[in-house]
Amino acid sequence: MRAAVFVEPRRIEITDRPDAAIREPSDAVVRVVLACVCGSDLWFYRGETPFEPGPIGHEFIGVVEDVGADVHNVKKGDFVISPFAFSDGTCPHCRHGITTACVHGGFFPTGNGDGGQGEAVRVPLADGTLVGVPGSGHSDETMASLLALSDVMGTGEHAAVCARVKPGDTVAVVGDGAVGLCGVLAAKRHGAERIIALSRHAQRQQLAREFGATDIVEARGEEAIAAVLELTDEVGVDAALECVGTGQAMDTALGIARPGSMVGYVGVPHGVELPPQTMFYGNKGVQGGPAPARHYLPELLEDVLQGRINPGRVFDFATDLDGVAEAYAAMDERRAIKSLLRVGTV
Amino acid sequence: MRAAVFVEPRRIEITDRPDAAIREPSDAVVRVVLACVCGSDLWFYRGETPFEPGPIGHEFIGVVEDVGADVHNVKKGDFVISPFAFSDGTCPHCRHGITTACVHGGFFPTGNGDGGQGEAVRVPLADGTLVGVPGSGHSDETMASLLALSDVMGTGEHAAVCARVKPGDTVAVVGDGAVGLCGVLAAKRHGAERIIALSRHAQRQQLAREFGATDIVEARGEEAIAAVLELTDEVGVDAALECVGTGQAMDTALGIARPGSMVGYVGVPHGVELPPQTMFYGNKGVQGGPAPARHYLPELLEDVLQGRINPGRVFDFATDLDGVAEAYAAMDERRAIKSLLRVGTV
Repeated sequence: MRAAVFVEPRRIEITDRPDAAIREPSDAVVRVVLACVCGSDLWFYRGETPFEPGPIGHEFIGVVEDVGADVHNVKKGDFVISPFAFSDGTCPHCRHGITTACVHGGFFPTGNGDGGQGEAVRVPLADGTLVGVPGSGHSDETMASLLALSDVMGTGEHAAVCARVKPGDTVAVVGDGAVGLCGVLAAKRHGAERIIALSRHAQRQQLAREFGATDIVEARGEEAIAAVLELTDEVGVDAALECVGTGQAMDTALGIARPGSMVGYVGVPHGVELPPQTMFYGNKGVQGGPAPARHYLPELLEDVLQGRINPGRVFDFATDLDGVAEAYAAMDERRAIKSLLRVGTV
Repeated sequence: MRAAVFVEPRRIEITDRPDAAIREPSDAVVRVVLACVCGSDLWFYRGETPFEPGPIGHEFIGVVEDVGADVHNVKKGDFVISPFAFSDGTCPHCRHGITTACVHGGFFPTGNGDGGQGEAVRVPLADGTLVGVPGSGHSDETMASLLALSDVMGTGEHAAVCARVKPGDTVAVVGDGAVGLCGVLAAKRHGAERIIALSRHAQRQQLAREFGATDIVEARGEEAIAAVLELTDEVGVDAALECVGTGQAMDTALGIARPGSMVGYVGVPHGVELPPQTMFYGNKGVQGGPAPARHYLPELLEDVLQGRINPGRVFDFATDLDGVAEAYAAMDERRAIKSLLRVGTV
């Protein structure tokens, strides 16, 4: 089968690899229909984090092609969403809703090397991992939103959950990438009354507004903190979503969170510092981590199918598997918010 | 009037000072009946944090002796509890329940130098700060518990609130000082089913058990982490209360908190580090700070008066104002969990 591989920083190629195949009785093989590039993929693409050359990608939806003997929740032919981590759904951490800490779980690309940016993927622990999508003939728009549930929307949701967004809140979202925009959508679905999006890009500001942002702050760093405090009568926000992962983004989030509030952070931390004294004397908390996208999938899926959220709108660049290098480049150069890959058909 | 003053590390004396008096129309003067020594007082007592020589103490209950023209909620003769911070009760942070971040508030000892360990205290923002105690002729036991509401019980409560303790939880409390013991009591009142107290002292273990602890772990550091993980089938606890403020205590709390849980921390951080990567990949959050004791006072007061909690049991050493130096020494040498000062009569 054909799959994208990372060769070296800024060099992504398509290669021939052994077909994805069942190895354990709990596996399924999913033929990929849509995949995409994650903001976190840019860390290795840019050479900023070490990464072994090999298959890449962790977001995909597709059709079940084969299942192992122990798989009962999905069957051949089912159209499914895979979250970016696999999990058994039965261990204590899964039962507590943190499927990304599953005792038997892990992250794509899996041990045998299948990544989401390829024609097919061996999915371990298929019963716990995959979520079937009811219905058929979904529109391209719905398909894109279903793809967004494999990671980016679940990650925005996790930021809102960790920040304890509640109805009536004033919320700020730091970061206008795809995750930040989904954070806006998540804050909105949790009932936030006012949503301040920190964004410097006209197109992203527009999408943030469509997703529910009521205010835009274009400044960064200390100026952004001052601007948000001014917007909130010097009180700060009831919840801050840090959707970047840099030190500056976290400093901003902690600077605008009001005493007693939480910063939900979902960008993989790079250069982030959590200052105990500042946080303590401000009674400001933080929580975040790899989003348990699988845990959020059923309710987000319902929202997508009912048309209540349309996170697929973060995809503003689309190509096929052969265009994967350009899909990365477009995001790297910020020409695209998020790149979609059309790999197969339902 | 007579009041305790800090002269230099390990030297506490009683001195004559100007009588506490109304300075602002929102002030009250409270004649102190009971006061006490806080674990946080030991930081300056031991010379571990800088502190200006002068009046000390921030926990007291007493009788209102005088009120300014703008004070309406309390009157001369009322028996009241003062939380360790004063607050107006009306600013946005107070309305959000974080009275220790009051825009107009502050901490005792106040600007004019009155500390709680003295015969009387000028209390700013009396309407927002003081809480009247109904009834009269309270027993010594009840009086001690009322005193505990000025700080230590509210601080234990804050740890439980920040750790999001909920009914049925397995909770661990790091620290067997007065705050840690009140943390056990707080976890219990929030419905924790299992409470693991980390304590090496037989007397404190005993009190922890009386307060609701179901398990005791005597180990420290890595061994404590291993012991708590073993007790919880390697899952970790649903909520961890860090009631010390040292780096080791925080490391332990983060080590035993299960993925998706929170560490509530209320010990003033000294040498604490919050490791973003460890916290992120474990989905473990932290929140804490100076407890909004005033915010928790009404419901805790009700619990004390109804006999549902008896936090005053943390006082195992009592003396009068002249014995204040010994009150500090007893806590410093860990001969006492917490020292009570009998200053006046109701």
